[in-house]
Amino acid sequence: MAGGRYRALAMLNLKSSTAPRWLAQIEGHEEELLLDHAHCEKKAAGTAMNLIFAYVDNTDLARRLADLVDEELAHFRMCLDLIAARGIRFRRLKPSSYGARLGELVRKLEPGRAVDRLLVAGLIEARSCERFALLRDSLADRELAEFYGSLFESEARHHSTYVQLAAAFLPEPDVHLRLEELAIAEAEIIALGDDVPRVHS
Amino acid sequence: MAGGRYRALAMLNLKSSTAPRWLAQIEGHEEELLLDHAHCEKKAAGTAMNLIFAYVDNTDLARRLADLVDEELAHFRMCLDLIAARGIRFRRLKPSSYGARLGELVRKLEPGRAVDRLLVAGLIEARSCERFALLRDSLADRELAEFYGSLFESEARHHSTYVQLAAAFLPEPDVHLRLEELAIAEAEIIALGDDVPRVHS
Repeated sequence: MAGGRYRALAMLNLKSSTAPRWLAQIEGHEEELLLDHAHCEKKAAGTAMNLIFAYVDNTDLARRLADLVDEELAHFRMCLDLIAARGIRFRRLKPSSYGARLGELVRKLEPGRAVDRLLVAGLIEARSCERFALLRDSLADRELAEFYGSLFESEARHHSTYVQLAAAFLPEPDVHLRLEELAIAEAEIIALGDDVPRVHS
Repeated sequence: MAGGRYRALAMLNLKSSTAPRWLAQIEGHEEELLLDHAHCEKKAAGTAMNLIFAYVDNTDLARRLADLVDEELAHFRMCLDLIAARGIRFRRLKPSSYGARLGELVRKLEPGRAVDRLLVAGLIEARSCERFALLRDSLADRELAEFYGSLFESEARHHSTYVQLAAAFLPEPDVHLRLEELAIAEAEIIALGDDVPRVHS
């Protein structure tokens, strides 16, 4: 079990596994988490769309991220369906600080900027993936547990897509060195947490 | 034929049909038009995504525009496929001034802003639809003619979707009055043209 966990972390290029405090924080706030998750899927679609606009000359990137937008929006709709089925009022939420903090690490100059935007997006997918596996294994609400579990594979695939796409902008060894740096920073940022229960708190 | 043309214009809420000068302008520039069209589909997807972000509390809007994003991206991929099959190098193009000029008409204050953003997006769909019908009936290149023709129905449907969604923000008579105003402005703007051959030149 622990071995599988370490392999999953390595596959996702993550430098830490989620601390037990997170599961404690979200307990009893499953509805708020679901709302935040809906916004995360929307934001993931928006991020991929922004990358299509920024680097559209790379048609391989444009095609693969167009597919990714479709998938994120399908997940967004699934969240809205679950929210509606549970009679929860869909509303905006204060986001966790995780995304903004990661965004600050993106270099200003190309091609480093492209690499960083892709790798940061990929690390967010990786962390979501790792946490969805935790939710799948931990939530008492089996419908929600299965829903999060069903997203595991696509989040892992999105992580790989982003890492692969980064290699169009810098040589692979440079991309992997930068991925190591950003992954270390990501582990520090996710450890900071937030005062509200969120997917990335 | 002329009767059908007028009915189509009325259905699309357009105040003018495309002047013959446009077909003359694009003749011999079919490849450039196809490139511009690819960018238009990308931009249409981006516009719908921005509207989802701006008005996500309206889950009916969010769902319907998520479907619309999927369709625009599917058309974007079809353009990329055609471009690749013809050995054309995909590249950025200077856009026509049409979209920016229409954008200037959007009111700054809500809920008028939401209505205007939706109606302007809807009028762009309508004009594309009207021009695709012209291309379907006029282009000597039958593959391209059929491609544009195949998009007619979805562009017309997108127009209706946008007009319907606007009614969530203001009473329908106000929406229709504003649609009339914006459609008159659109007819003036499209008549200005551009010095480069574009979908909306």
